[in-house]
Amino acid sequence: MRALTLNQSLEFRHDYPDPVAPAGESLVKVTLAGICGTDLELARGYMGFSGIPGHEFVGVVVESADPSLIGQRVVGEINAGCRRCAQCAIGLERHCANRTVLGILGRDGSFAEYLRLPDENLISLPEEIEDRAAVFAEPLAAAYEIFEQVEIRRDHSILILGDGRLATLVALAMKAEGYAPIIGGHHREKLLRLNQLGLETLAETDLKGRFDVVVDCTGASAGFGRAIELTRPRGTLILKSTMAGEARIDLAPVVINEITVVGSRCGRLRTAIIALASRKIDPKPLVSTIYPLAEWREAFAAARSPSSVKILLRPS
Amino acid sequence: MRALTLNQSLEFRHDYPDPVAPAGESLVKVTLAGICGTDLELARGYMGFSGIPGHEFVGVVVESADPSLIGQRVVGEINAGCRRCAQCAIGLERHCANRTVLGILGRDGSFAEYLRLPDENLISLPEEIEDRAAVFAEPLAAAYEIFEQVEIRRDHSILILGDGRLATLVALAMKAEGYAPIIGGHHREKLLRLNQLGLETLAETDLKGRFDVVVDCTGASAGFGRAIELTRPRGTLILKSTMAGEARIDLAPVVINEITVVGSRCGRLRTAIIALASRKIDPKPLVSTIYPLAEWREAFAAARSPSSVKILLRPS
Repeated sequence: MRALTLNQSLEFRHDYPDPVAPAGESLVKVTLAGICGTDLELARGYMGFSGIPGHEFVGVVVESADPSLIGQRVVGEINAGCRRCAQCAIGLERHCANRTVLGILGRDGSFAEYLRLPDENLISLPEEIEDRAAVFAEPLAAAYEIFEQVEIRRDHSILILGDGRLATLVALAMKAEGYAPIIGGHHREKLLRLNQLGLETLAETDLKGRFDVVVDCTGASAGFGRAIELTRPRGTLILKSTMAGEARIDLAPVVINEITVVGSRCGRLRTAIIALASRKIDPKPLVSTIYPLAEWREAFAAARSPSSVKILLRPS
Repeated sequence: MRALTLNQSLEFRHDYPDPVAPAGESLVKVTLAGICGTDLELARGYMGFSGIPGHEFVGVVVESADPSLIGQRVVGEINAGCRRCAQCAIGLERHCANRTVLGILGRDGSFAEYLRLPDENLISLPEEIEDRAAVFAEPLAAAYEIFEQVEIRRDHSILILGDGRLATLVALAMKAEGYAPIIGGHHREKLLRLNQLGLETLAETDLKGRFDVVVDCTGASAGFGRAIELTRPRGTLILKSTMAGEARIDLAPVVINEITVVGSRCGRLRTAIIALASRKIDPKPLVSTIYPLAEWREAFAAARSPSSVKILLRPS
């Protein structure tokens, strides 16, 4: 099959072996795949991943031992747990120590014609969610993860730091759930686009120690220091950015101001599916361009550019 | 008066001007003062403090506009707020943006014959708490601060990282309140001494991701990375260490394992006084040596040595 592979550098191949689904897993033909900030980090060496990257997708089940799945349009939970440990027992496969993660850890991902996932990871899509919306299920679930971890009050002042893809989805999720987030960024063009989506923005300022809740979606280590500065004493900083490697960080303000830093990663896809089906959130305007998989170079360049939001790949 | 001063380096002076208490403040003659890890950091340049360091003390009020205070044996809240801001209004003077902090920020401290503090910061001591126990009120309050910030369950597995002064007080406070903490350190001598205090210890191990709650009391930036490793996914890391300056830190595990990092600093002295008065905690065995203030060099050297626990200064 055609696949984009990563082995220190990215390479497009026409002859990658088709995946073979073992017992308990299904084969999915990928319709659309999204490029995420994590994919850009993986390409820079984050996690030391080699294989097929890509973890955002919508596809159709083409092979499965479960006949009810065949032909279903699906998205999929990207963490596949061992099903035997304490984390898996409480439904936290995404924290199983022996997990594989689609396109991130020990498991080929979605930048290919086909992928495989455990049957129980696949979630059939209701008709009303189009492919171009469904492909946002995974990053939208990551946005909704915040509500599973942190109790935020509707009257809390909330700043989302960063004006990229994840920041936008976090802001849309918060707005859909009745919060009033403000997005702080420094790309004029991006802030205008966020305003057009009905989101409130703020050019980055000196509002030090002002916000009850700050969500760091900058994807940059420098963002952490700024986020700490903007959080009020005893406030909460939700850390959504994953960066490759170490950075120089001063933790003293975290202690002095008694800030709570909450690391936040993947969420439950069903929660995102419910939000998409209810039409509380429509992510389709975030799609900038859809590239054929063979044009991955252009697609990755576009994903790195501040002038685009979501870049999708069409593998078939 | 005699005072130990800090201006880039420490210097003992016989001729430091006696403090003059402004309206609303009292003058306290210092009986005993404790040397804390923060004092060692201040001497290395942390906070850029200049003046008289020292924030742990017990003393006697010698001048006050409030006659009920005169002659009282007291300890004192070290944060003096502006009394006008939102933080002060809710009793969080310790997070007032315009606060001074005894011996740490804009206010001379306790390594001197006399100090001054606002009347409302002073807390009279019940007779049953001896001076050598009362001098622990401030660091013990910092230990109890954890319970004000984080809901810890009695069945949580708790690791306290570090085998120094603060780690010991945190462990004693947790044990007194019905928790079962384990102290992880690497000084054999210190661990044995902790065992003699009835505390459970553990030579540092490879128990990665095992603990529900990890309290970082190492006072070292390397401690943060170890603490993160030892915390289970979705677990809580309480950061008690304050370090001068930046350090190289990898925040990715915080996000990947969705760890909550809670910065924790000063606590309420009344809480500590209640614990001391109830005799749930007896910190007196932690006193290694009491030095006259003039022997500050020996005292600071002893405070830096792993073979001592608490070093006290007697200014008068």
